[in-house]
Amino acid sequence: MNESKRITPRTLKGFRDYLPEAMLARERLIDTARQVFRSFGFVPIDTPALEYLEILSGKGGEESDKQLYKFQDHGGRWVGLRFDLTVPLARFAAQHLTKLGLPIKRYHIATVWRGENTQRGRFREFMQCDFDAIGVHSTAADAEIVLVINDLLTALGFQEFTIRLNNRLILSGLLERLGLADKATTVLRVLDKLGKVGAEEVESLLVSEAGASASQAAEIKHFAQLAGENESLLHEAEPLVGRSAAGAEGIKKLSELLSALLDGAGLPPERLKIDFSIARGLDYYTGSVFETYLDRLPDIGSVCSGGRYDSLAGLFTSEELPGVGASLGVDRLLAAMEELHLLEKPTATAPVFIPFFEKDRLQDYLRLAAALRRSGIGVELYPEPVRLDKQLKYADRRGFRLALIIGEKEFQTAQCQVKDLKTRGRTEVALDAGYSALISAIKQVLAC
Amino acid sequence: MNESKRITPRTLKGFRDYLPEAMLARERLIDTARQVFRSFGFVPIDTPALEYLEILSGKGGEESDKQLYKFQDHGGRWVGLRFDLTVPLARFAAQHLTKLGLPIKRYHIATVWRGENTQRGRFREFMQCDFDAIGVHSTAADAEIVLVINDLLTALGFQEFTIRLNNRLILSGLLERLGLADKATTVLRVLDKLGKVGAEEVESLLVSEAGASASQAAEIKHFAQLAGENESLLHEAEPLVGRSAAGAEGIKKLSELLSALLDGAGLPPERLKIDFSIARGLDYYTGSVFETYLDRLPDIGSVCSGGRYDSLAGLFTSEELPGVGASLGVDRLLAAMEELHLLEKPTATAPVFIPFFEKDRLQDYLRLAAALRRSGIGVELYPEPVRLDKQLKYADRRGFRLALIIGEKEFQTAQCQVKDLKTRGRTEVALDAGYSALISAIKQVLAC
Repeated sequence: MNESKRITPRTLKGFRDYLPEAMLARERLIDTARQVFRSFGFVPIDTPALEYLEILSGKGGEESDKQLYKFQDHGGRWVGLRFDLTVPLARFAAQHLTKLGLPIKRYHIATVWRGENTQRGRFREFMQCDFDAIGVHSTAADAEIVLVINDLLTALGFQEFTIRLNNRLILSGLLERLGLADKATTVLRVLDKLGKVGAEEVESLLVSEAGASASQAAEIKHFAQLAGENESLLHEAEPLVGRSAAGAEGIKKLSELLSALLDGAGLPPERLKIDFSIARGLDYYTGSVFETYLDRLPDIGSVCSGGRYDSLAGLFTSEELPGVGASLGVDRLLAAMEELHLLEKPTATAPVFIPFFEKDRLQDYLRLAAALRRSGIGVELYPEPVRLDKQLKYADRRGFRLALIIGEKEFQTAQCQVKDLKTRGRTEVALDAGYSALISAIKQVLAC
Repeated sequence: MNESKRITPRTLKGFRDYLPEAMLARERLIDTARQVFRSFGFVPIDTPALEYLEILSGKGGEESDKQLYKFQDHGGRWVGLRFDLTVPLARFAAQHLTKLGLPIKRYHIATVWRGENTQRGRFREFMQCDFDAIGVHSTAADAEIVLVINDLLTALGFQEFTIRLNNRLILSGLLERLGLADKATTVLRVLDKLGKVGAEEVESLLVSEAGASASQAAEIKHFAQLAGENESLLHEAEPLVGRSAAGAEGIKKLSELLSALLDGAGLPPERLKIDFSIARGLDYYTGSVFETYLDRLPDIGSVCSGGRYDSLAGLFTSEELPGVGASLGVDRLLAAMEELHLLEKPTATAPVFIPFFEKDRLQDYLRLAAALRRSGIGVELYPEPVRLDKQLKYADRRGFRLALIIGEKEFQTAQCQVKDLKTRGRTEVALDAGYSALISAIKQVLAC
């Protein structure tokens, strides 16, 4: 190849390669998430990356339209890359409702694309991991979504985290009482910024952007900042919002949800915290809303958020599809796991390494490796008969647990040196016909 | 929502939704593949769906250029959706070589897009599942790729399949002897069609397209159709190709590979068959080539193909990167598993179903479900307190193994009806404080 014709290997800004270490972490996170989803009976679905543009831009506001990767395909159709998994779910549910029936409890783990400004540290391609129960009214479904979040974070190794709960109806009750019901969308969007910009800024934005009076803004700020035990918060909120039907219903639902989670499922009380400032920006939510914070890393924001909605797919079907769901922040969680040292470092995917350094003994090495794999032990055989020290360096870099060193002498005396790459200890094990002594020696080490 | 504003929910031609049943099958296939890859020490990577157009179209011929989904992004850059995982691997290897070192043994399971004519029953979006060892010269690596194919198909439940092997150098030797070396690319492309169009058609295409004489075409046809025991085929080929250095090397390498697989790793001899017609269309292959056929479904074509190449990434780096790899046909395998009844039908992802039909008992149902999950038993609690018969119909449709029927009477007497949805049998089990009797009863059924 002519040097001048060579192309510089590079990726687009905002796009990432996953090297083995990062990819293994992502695979482990996704495997864990899937196991937890399945333990609650959720089923997986997938939808195309490309959809008709009218489907994708039908619901999104101007902001998501600007971020959409869109183009005309070979047939001149306007198409776009999905920017979230909610719009595809709405389209999917409307399209397959008759076949699937209700309820639908699905999870969807897939890539989405947004042509965002990468200066904010955002990626243009990232994974989303959503789970929803659709066609459900009962608090049982809300409780289950929160339980999934709890089990998932626990399974990933997090011990200290807080799920913050609220109900949109409580905020509606407050706004009704304040005579601000018609400005609810803007108020909630402003309130959603509280964690980022602080209470003072929210108060002044409520005036300048949502058109609230100074005293209205002060009341909303006060309400959003109420703090204390869950029980006393409910009591405190009651007189402030309870005279409106929505407000009273919100208090009742939130109280029911807490009982289901604490008295029913037995969640540790310190994990659940009522927080009346949780609004979630989207107008789409109508009931429970929740966010999840890692106590040791509060600044990274919510790692799993969601809520209840009345109508998932009004754009695509006349069928009422109420539901509740949440979305796991895969990138945030991986970053948090890295920071809290919850990620396994080795990139070895098999526990045992066999260096291949007697080039005329390939058949013998392959015979041993096959026997170990048949007994359930993963084995990497080095694919090239190079110098042993080079191979052992490779093994150290990858983080194998054991290396089986077998040179010509060992083959002839039917012995194998088992090297523990963690403790640096060495033992000699006989190579009998079925390798049974070696297999049990290895299993004994791996079981520790 | 105004009826007239509603958007018809639909997917683009050539694109598919995966409903739960299909998605579960895909997840199981991919999980199995990953387990096998890992048991050989392969590690996962991922690359972006979108790449600079020059990277994607640099290597592909005109055909893949036409099929490329390409467009200008928000910054006016020409970009495209990846159409295979080979070009991204080449770019990835060149870009990260220094960091990763050699050898690189990676697997990559990801979606690719091609704007193909869907009339041929092809999809425009599909998954590829590739595995390669890069930076390796030894036959050990070729053998390992074939062993992965064998273990993978076995793990998926296939029992009768044949891996057909050849070496490009043998065909080079033949063409050298016939004085057709300069037409090798076209000859191999024609030969690759043998399975589809038949030997007579190949013979005439060799004349009309590759410019072979009638007697040259006849010799190639004869050679490609040689059949018999592997040993005798090697002997038969020897005089026909062995006088050229390439041909002799090809025979030697193929013979070495067979010994490694049979005498070393102990593959059943009937699984491996030399087939001199295996050419693989791409000019890229330079050594071993292989294809895999299901004996009971030969017509679906090869379900896993690959081979050895001298230079993976010449377009992106001056580093020589020889390697060997293969690609699993995910769609073909899923279709075959469906046809051979190797797919599990139930879409229940948890074994136990709990109907929720006493609406004031949500906390009790949640307590039980949480206890079962803590003991490792997956449980789906129906999310809505509707009529029991409706819930049991749902459970039947989903294919749960057990249903735990607990109404007001059962709660009061601390009893639970365990219904085996397979045998239709019912037993009564006491609900003690820790549910220990129930947990062991369930585990006993699930262990069967």
